[in-house]
Amino acid sequence: MKISGRNKLEATVKQVVMGQVMAKVVMDYKGTELVAAITVDSVEDLGLKAGDKVTALVKATEMMVIK
Amino acid sequence: MKISGRNKLEATVKQVVMGQVMAKVVMDYKGTELVAAITVDSVEDLGLKAGDKVTALVKATEMMVIK
Amino acid sequence: MKISGRNKLEATVKQVVMGQVMAKVVMDYKGTELVAAITVDSVEDLGLKAGDKVTALVKATEMMVIK
Amino acid sequence: MKISGRNKLEATVKQVVMGQVMAKVVMDYKGTELVAAITVDSVEDLGLKAGDKVTALVKATEMMVIK
Amino acid sequence: MKISGRNKLEATVKQVVMGQVMAKVVMDYKGTELVAAITVDSVEDLGLKAGDKVTALVKATEMMVIK
Amino acid sequence: MKISGRNKLEATVKQVVMGQVMAKVVMDYKGTELVAAITVDSVEDLGLKAGDKVTALVKATEMMVIK
Repeated sequence: MKISGRNKLEATVKQVVMGQVMAKVVMDYKGTELVAAITVDSVEDLGLKAGDKVTALVKATEMMVIK
Repeated sequence: MKISGRNKLEATVKQVVMGQVMAKVVMDYKGTELVAAITVDSVEDLGLKAGDKVTALVKATEMMVIK
Repeated sequence: MKISGRNKLEATVKQVVMGQVMAKVVMDYKGTELVAAITVDSVEDLGLKAGDKVTALVKATEMMVIK
Repeated sequence: MKISGRNKLEATVKQVVMGQVMAKVVMDYKGTELVAAITVDSVEDLGLKAGDKVTALVKATEMMVIK
Repeated sequence: MKISGRNKLEATVKQVVMGQVMAKVVMDYKGTELVAAITVDSVEDLGLKAGDKVTALVKATEMMVIK
Repeated sequence: MKISGRNKLEATVKQVVMGQVMAKVVMDYKGTELVAAITVDSVEDLGLKAGDKVTALVKATEMMVIK
């Protein structure tokens, strides 16, 4: 199975903060902190918790460039 | 100046491919390839070319998690 | 493997139109036409062509509601 | 009035969950569950509630493909 | 008919540039230039051309803040 | 420093509403109300409060057109 999304970053979950609808997933990727805002349903569906090895996925059209 | 977007990856531009409206910017981030699809106007405005030190920016709501 | 993206529509590819950077993938989902704009790299990576059985993926934060 | 967004799915609202800022709107689309994360303001502005006939809208650049 | 997207800017189309898959729509909003990258199919479907009165639509989750 | 995002709207913050994970930032832009849904972390990082002069940033691929 392959996904069209071009950016796949293998990261480790550091923290999960649950709100009522949205959750914050803080990850470590090679020393850089990544933050994903996903639904609490997704956190529960994936069973996300600190220490999990995950892949952060970003579509190419969602990435900007600063110079 | 600070930007609300939570994910900032310091990367190096490897390749820029220009289409008519959209351009592909391929970057290297610590050995992982990143791909951003931005407008050709942006590439020209920033003067993006291979070798440039840039920051890839992604809003937290645009990042998914795979486990 | 599970993806946090909440919307997964099992569709059939009807047409792929290649540009220089972006490609259009037209799909059929139970009689409704779906259109995804992804990179040509993704089309080549997945080997997408008419007739393929695929899953269209949309993050919950990317879906609007009209009433 | 026409909207540029290419993906329009006629669905029925099954559930609305209100958070403080974001709300979850669960819909049924031809037997598939759709989930939109929109602001609570939008839910109130549209008066969204279970049973409503709505259209889920997704821009082509926000749709990925899995194969 | 109401759309959940919170940001609606009444603008005037200044220029439309067609690529193979994506098109650039440049608009004027009270003296500020807006740029939307939408599919060429959308441009044709809406019959977009310079001088058109349109509304630029942005979902709240897609807007960042710089300070 | 330049950002590839094409749409930059100079606005004034009118209200900030904090949820547990996401925050709503209401802005005034030349008489039109703008709403951004960003993380509470971003609000704290930028120190956002009513009266602040800010720039609302939107990537061209995130803007739709209604006609």
